Amino acid sequence: MSIQQHRSAETRQKIESAALELFSANGYDATGVADICARAGISKGAFYHHFPTKHDVFLSLLDHWVTSIHQSLAAPPEGSAAEVLRSMPDIMGRVLADARGRLPIFIEFWRQASRNPVIWQAAMAPYHLFRNYFAAIIQRGIEDGSLRPVDPQAAATTLVSLAVGLLLQGTLDPTREDWAAASQNSIDLFLHGLEAK
Amino acid sequence: MSIQQHRSAETRQKIESAALELFSANGYDATGVADICARAGISKGAFYHHFPTKHDVFLSLLDHWVTSIHQSLAAPPEGSAAEVLRSMPDIMGRVLADARGRLPIFIEFWRQASRNPVIWQAAMAPYHLFRNYFAAIIQRGIEDGSLRPVDPQAAATTLVSLAVGLLLQGTLDPTREDWAAASQNSIDLFLHGLEAK
Repeated sequence: MSIQQHRSAETRQKIESAALELFSANGYDATGVADICARAGISKGAFYHHFPTKHDVFLSLLDHWVTSIHQSLAAPPEGSAAEVLRSMPDIMGRVLADARGRLPIFIEFWRQASRNPVIWQAAMAPYHLFRNYFAAIIQRGIEDGSLRPVDPQAAATTLVSLAVGLLLQGTLDPTREDWAAASQNSIDLFLHGLEAK
Repeated sequence: MSIQQHRSAETRQKIESAALELFSANGYDATGVADICARAGISKGAFYHHFPTKHDVFLSLLDHWVTSIHQSLAAPPEGSAAEVLRSMPDIMGRVLADARGRLPIFIEFWRQASRNPVIWQAAMAPYHLFRNYFAAIIQRGIEDGSLRPVDPQAAATTLVSLAVGLLLQGTLDPTREDWAAASQNSIDLFLHGLEAK
């Protein structure tokens, strides 16, 4: 990477960090390009060199989140389907650690998603990723005889719903429970209903 | 109710409807008391007769939601614990129908909750209600021998997480799946892991 490329990447990073802070603190609507530039310590020219609009910065932040989720699912651990599913709380722990303190920006994602179809598509992408990931694991478990012959897509929907509910509560209300223990207990209960006897 | 009391209740209702519309469309921060009065077709004097601040209208809307959830849990159906739990999708269907189209105001509840401890307490109340409700039913099922001897609070946390995840997805993305069928399937899977063999 040339010095110029390095500086360009650094500017982009500064814009995104500033936008993340301001969208979280004040909301998307109340944040202008001028505010982002002031916080990032850059000129408007530099901003528009990287992003055509404020909306594109927002989509880029959302995209980073989806990519980080995708990466955390990229390498499913070795082992039987039941073992892989039992490791789900570890994956969720990583997603939750990543989400910690970022509730305001997630709320901003949903808020904008409920108003804008492009953001909506991007915000829904993680659910599809998760469901297909778990459906494939459950399918494998049914084929190797370790799981009951359930509908893999339907069981994956249950599992994703459980994960979404645990993550939402763990993010909204982190101190109410030991959410790591609750995740472990929930997956054990789920597997108890799924494992072949 | 006298004519005067009736008119007073009507004014309060007008204020709440106007605030619900405006908070949903434009957000809490961007909505002023003057906007609410204009939409409701009332004077500022009438507004302040009913609510000391905009914040109090918001809390009242949140309170209506919590009350409606409380009422939907008020009369648990007759029958065994498993039968009652199997009827959960009906309860969820009612909550979901009630939530339909109200996503923007829920997002506004969470958004304000993440910033304000009083709203946060009020917004978390439904989770506690649900968990205690389900823990009591599971406890009954363990006592009558129809359910395995699990930790009722922990199993109730799983069930509430599942419900929260299904409701969130059903509200964010109503057309992606048949959420009533997904709820029914999820509760069957959950019960399969919970029922005494």
